[in-house]
Amino acid sequence: MRRTVLALTAALLASAPIAAQTIQTSATDRVIDQGTNHSEVMRIAQYLTDVIGARLTNSPGIRRAEDWTQAKFREWGLVNVHKEGFEFGRGWSNEKLAVRMVAPRPLQLIAAPLPWTPGTSGAITGEVVLAPLADEAAFAQYKGKLKGKVVLITEPKDIEDPTEAPFKRWSVEELAKRDFYDLPNGDGERPFNPARYTFAGKRDAFLKAEGAIGYAIMSSRNGKLVHGQNSQFQVGQSGTLPGIEIAAEDYRRLARLAKMGAKPTLEIDAVNRFDDSDTKGYNILADIPGTDPKAGYVMAGAHLDSWAMGDGAADNAAGSAMVMEAARIIRASGIKTKRAIRFALWAGEEQGLLGSMAYVEAHIAKRPVDPSAGGIVRYMTWSRAFPITPGPDHGKLAAYFNLDNGSGKIRGIYAQGNTAVMPIFEQWFTPFHTMGATLVSARRTGSTDHVFFDAVGIPAFQFIQDPLDYGSMVHHTDVDTFDHLKADDMRQGATILAAFLINAANSDQPLPRAPLATAPTPADQFYPFPESAH
Amino acid sequence: MRRTVLALTAALLASAPIAAQTIQTSATDRVIDQGTNHSEVMRIAQYLTDVIGARLTNSPGIRRAEDWTQAKFREWGLVNVHKEGFEFGRGWSNEKLAVRMVAPRPLQLIAAPLPWTPGTSGAITGEVVLAPLADEAAFAQYKGKLKGKVVLITEPKDIEDPTEAPFKRWSVEELAKRDFYDLPNGDGERPFNPARYTFAGKRDAFLKAEGAIGYAIMSSRNGKLVHGQNSQFQVGQSGTLPGIEIAAEDYRRLARLAKMGAKPTLEIDAVNRFDDSDTKGYNILADIPGTDPKAGYVMAGAHLDSWAMGDGAADNAAGSAMVMEAARIIRASGIKTKRAIRFALWAGEEQGLLGSMAYVEAHIAKRPVDPSAGGIVRYMTWSRAFPITPGPDHGKLAAYFNLDNGSGKIRGIYAQGNTAVMPIFEQWFTPFHTMGATLVSARRTGSTDHVFFDAVGIPAFQFIQDPLDYGSMVHHTDVDTFDHLKADDMRQGATILAAFLINAANSDQPLPRAPLATAPTPADQFYPFPESAH
Repeated sequence: MRRTVLALTAALLASAPIAAQTIQTSATDRVIDQGTNHSEVMRIAQYLTDVIGARLTNSPGIRRAEDWTQAKFREWGLVNVHKEGFEFGRGWSNEKLAVRMVAPRPLQLIAAPLPWTPGTSGAITGEVVLAPLADEAAFAQYKGKLKGKVVLITEPKDIEDPTEAPFKRWSVEELAKRDFYDLPNGDGERPFNPARYTFAGKRDAFLKAEGAIGYAIMSSRNGKLVHGQNSQFQVGQSGTLPGIEIAAEDYRRLARLAKMGAKPTLEIDAVNRFDDSDTKGYNILADIPGTDPKAGYVMAGAHLDSWAMGDGAADNAAGSAMVMEAARIIRASGIKTKRAIRFALWAGEEQGLLGSMAYVEAHIAKRPVDPSAGGIVRYMTWSRAFPITPGPDHGKLAAYFNLDNGSGKIRGIYAQGNTAVMPIFEQWFTPFHTMGATLVSARRTGSTDHVFFDAVGIPAFQFIQDPLDYGSMVHHTDVDTFDHLKADDMRQGATILAAFLINAANSDQPLPRAPLATAPTPADQFYPFPESAH
Repeated sequence: MRRTVLALTAALLASAPIAAQTIQTSATDRVIDQGTNHSEVMRIAQYLTDVIGARLTNSPGIRRAEDWTQAKFREWGLVNVHKEGFEFGRGWSNEKLAVRMVAPRPLQLIAAPLPWTPGTSGAITGEVVLAPLADEAAFAQYKGKLKGKVVLITEPKDIEDPTEAPFKRWSVEELAKRDFYDLPNGDGERPFNPARYTFAGKRDAFLKAEGAIGYAIMSSRNGKLVHGQNSQFQVGQSGTLPGIEIAAEDYRRLARLAKMGAKPTLEIDAVNRFDDSDTKGYNILADIPGTDPKAGYVMAGAHLDSWAMGDGAADNAAGSAMVMEAARIIRASGIKTKRAIRFALWAGEEQGLLGSMAYVEAHIAKRPVDPSAGGIVRYMTWSRAFPITPGPDHGKLAAYFNLDNGSGKIRGIYAQGNTAVMPIFEQWFTPFHTMGATLVSARRTGSTDHVFFDAVGIPAFQFIQDPLDYGSMVHHTDVDTFDHLKADDMRQGATILAAFLINAANSDQPLPRAPLATAPTPADQFYPFPESAH
């Protein structure tokens, strides 16, 4: 279509003097022009990362981001800009962490604070003891041995050789392999043990009772990257002893020195703060109204919250910036749509998609989960609870699009097993084939904020993106920083998202819906065959 | 040969009852047995890295290593164990470094101290200013702007995508590509500007005069690895202002925030110590005597000193441990050789091969270098000074073998253009083909301690090793730690080194020598053609 415009312009130049005139550009080309020639996506991402930084839910960082993102939506002329709260739990932040070995020789170590553990109130010093505590059964063996100690509570796993390149883009062949239909596995529900998620608290209590002064886990990556995570405290829980994650190389050295009797001793100086002034997490919502108030709405979302280390760049300032930029593109291009378009920036994603779940529960559908179950337990049980009771927007929300795979360019979309949408999406991708977006995959993907929309029958999708160094290096680590984001990729992603939203908001019919899930019956568990079938 | 022994044993078992008898094993098989079944190479490497740690020349670490390595050589029965001093310069060490951003938001940063800069005497705080100072011409533009500031003195280079796997071994095809003859380039001497090596001092004086409180350079690697180096102070020089290297991701963020006017502010708390109590560096020497006192000696060496970050594991506890283990293997196997075998652990390698140069000057040959030229200037000029005046050991030292390519297994050896040794080395590698050591390359290699032996006509060689993650990740960084060393590779390396030493010490004739270098004449500069030839 761009070619048509150029040809038209050339014809005008040849035949007549240039005059002010309205050139008829298609909606897609106007979106492409805004999204590529006038992009602001990297400026948005830079503010979220460099200036605001990490945005752990209910930390000072996400509070700054809540204000700033709403201001930007208002600046671009979106309406109904507001935040919607949901119960989350206390806030936590780190202001300082210095960890060094002081014996048998002085050595600065790389470490990250474990969220929702307290600081040290000045530097503390203690000998290191290796006492892997994988479960409660391990407690007995270390009883009476931890007083005054800094305890290494995870096994020092061996190093793995990095024989794969950390940075990659999908080749055409690799991309094609991502297109398959996930058959339901038919082996019934996976076992789920909520006790697993209360172990961090029990371990903390054991260590405290034994007189340990702090504890450390090993980073799951080599090369001195740290995360500050690893199945520690769940939302609403917090610890009483200072806990840190130590870089793998540094942790293994401590463990080896402890094993050889060299009595390694750590000095830890951590300033962490709890904040109970507002225990609600907040989703940010903003609308571009449709021309037909009865036509319902479509939606794009990304989680604004991040993990605690790094600046939450690939996860997920990238997605948040692309969602915000799509809003700016649509407003700036002046395109009107039949349906309204709603933009959502979620909180609490890292603790179990809690923000998007709260939105779904408030507007789309309810499920009979245990009201006392919070955080990860709620996340694990929600989609298993039947019946589904549709809410006020269940019929109104025509489509939801999510971005949460880093800053890599869009290469396709997962259709979540909804095969009826596949030919439609293939048509929508056509103008973007030469920008690398080609694949409509039948596959279902999970672990991010489209999941609960999908679970209650909304056509809800996550895009396929080039992996870059997201999974291999930056995910939840201290190198999840702005400089790992790819500007050209993010311009492409925001542009395609804007085009998809316009298509979904302007289509004659809303996107086809897959059959609503029903409670599994014993008859659905065909593998392994029940006893009676033998 | 191992196969012969097994066949013999089988024959004995078949024909007669087992009795105590002396099985005739070849020297190589006795070396292989000691080096593989009874290896201590990893125990040696672990003590040098985990317990002793970094061994910057004239730091407390290398002083501990000097004592411990001599004690080990004596324990194994080597004789003439001693240290030989050479003038080096003041000692320096770091005991603490904590760097964090305190505005516009609190954030712990990853940094390394720059060796031979002072500490901070308590935490200092200053706003960050980006002022790249590549040369003296850059000073004028920042005059009057640096008072009270922490100055970023290098350009924040863009990130590079890591599209290669950090860890690799040579395939047979890649290894074969390392076999070529380096023709002398015939374009005369490369220009050499000693002024380049005094710039760090001039920059320090400028920053001090301007009232800056400290400065930082950017790490040359991404992924939060730090080195504490980058053409800073040369041996004998030291700074007056605290200097640090900041991880690339953290440095770029500071530079971006400074550029956008966000006034990033750093807090730096560094404890560094100078030590002028002994300005000599020391080489460690230890001998296994030969059976013929007139037959001269052969030698193996590796540098014991390391850079300041990490524990100096791949660079070069690995080589040092293999050299020490070769000594232990030869002593434990009880093999006698005609020539003596000398083991050397060098100091000052990282500052310009200063320890091995001092040995060569004291024992092998002198060259007329400017006596006032020290450190890197001496390194750069030594091999260009003629004539070469042979010293007392020039005719006695039959061969020198060096190890300084990390912990990767030996895949071959560089013949340094000495083609006459190539068929001999091919024969020596034969028993080790199935352990991966196959290539005798005509190529010359440099940058480590065989260089000055080679430059005065001694047959002096460096082995070819599998690269592993040495150049890509651990070289001079804070992940140069014990866990990146490969035990099987190091067992192989020590075994092959021991076998080569025995072969070189027992051969009828000493290894053939290449022609001694002579001073280049204008006639040797055939490219580009001189004016008169046109």
